[in-house]
Amino acid sequence: MDTDVFFMQEALRLAQQAGEQGEIPVGAVVVCADKIVGRGYNQTIALKDPTAHAEMIAITAATNTIGSRYLNECTLYVTLEPCVMCAGACYWAMLGRVVYGANDEKNGCGKVGKPLFHPKTEVAKGIMLLETSDLLKVFFKKLRTK
Amino acid sequence: MDTDVFFMQEALRLAQQAGEQGEIPVGAVVVCADKIVGRGYNQTIALKDPTAHAEMIAITAATNTIGSRYLNECTLYVTLEPCVMCAGACYWAMLGRVVYGANDEKNGCGKVGKPLFHPKTEVAKGIMLLETSDLLKVFFKKLRTK
Repeated sequence: MDTDVFFMQEALRLAQQAGEQGEIPVGAVVVCADKIVGRGYNQTIALKDPTAHAEMIAITAATNTIGSRYLNECTLYVTLEPCVMCAGACYWAMLGRVVYGANDEKNGCGKVGKPLFHPKTEVAKGIMLLETSDLLKVFFKKLRTK
Repeated sequence: MDTDVFFMQEALRLAQQAGEQGEIPVGAVVVCADKIVGRGYNQTIALKDPTAHAEMIAITAATNTIGSRYLNECTLYVTLEPCVMCAGACYWAMLGRVVYGANDEKNGCGKVGKPLFHPKTEVAKGIMLLETSDLLKVFFKKLRTK
C-alpha cells in the first residue's frame, strides 16, 4: 500500500473519532522514519479551547515524543487543509512535509493567497480526497438535519 | 493610569520572565471585565513545543478560566505583534480586541498583507512601544555578544 494512503487512513480514523464525539471530524498524525510520533483529533468543543485543532495536538505530541521543537524530518498527515493557525504552527515546527486530504475553501490557509508554510516544507494535497471530503460532508449534513 | 498601559505592563513583566529563562521575551495576558483571566509567556524552548507562544498559552488559559472557547468579550495584550499562528488562534477565539506593543517585521502577521484577525476584532498597536521593543533589542544584543 502507498505510504501516504497508509498514514492518511490513520488520520481518517482519528477524524472519525472526533466526529463521534460531536467535533468537526478532522484528524492528524505526525510520522518520522515511518513511525507515528504524534496523533491528534479536533477537540475544540471538549476542551473548550479554540487552539485544540488536530494538527496542533499532533505537532505538540510529536515534539514531545522526539524531544525537539523542530519536525524537519517528519511528515504531518491531516484529513483537511490546515487553517491559518495550523499552517503557522507547521511553519514554526519547520515540518519536512505536509500531506492533506480535503480542501477547505472557507477556512483553509490557501485562501490567504500567500504561502504560509515554511519555504522548505513540501506540500501534497488531495490524498484520499474522496474519503476525507465525504466524512466532512456527511457530518455537516447530519448537523443540518438535526 | 491608562487601562491599556496597566495590562501591557503585566504582559511586559511576563515577557521579562521569559527572557530570564532564555526564551525570546514575549508575554501576554487576556483580560475580561478588567480582570486577567489568562497569562502566558513564550516557552517554546522549555517545553520543546513550537506552538508554545505567549498568546497561545494565554488564550488556552483564558478559555479554561471562562469555560468558553470564544473570547469575544476579552482583550489580548501581547508585547510583540502576533505571528501568523497566533493571529489564527485569535481568529478562532473571536477576540474582542487585540493590543500589542512592538512590531515584528520579520515574523509578524502583518507581513502577510491580508488581515488574519477576525473581522470583528479591534486591533491596537504600539502600546508601550518603547519598552516592549527595548526588551527584545536588549535580549538579541546580549544573544549576539555571547
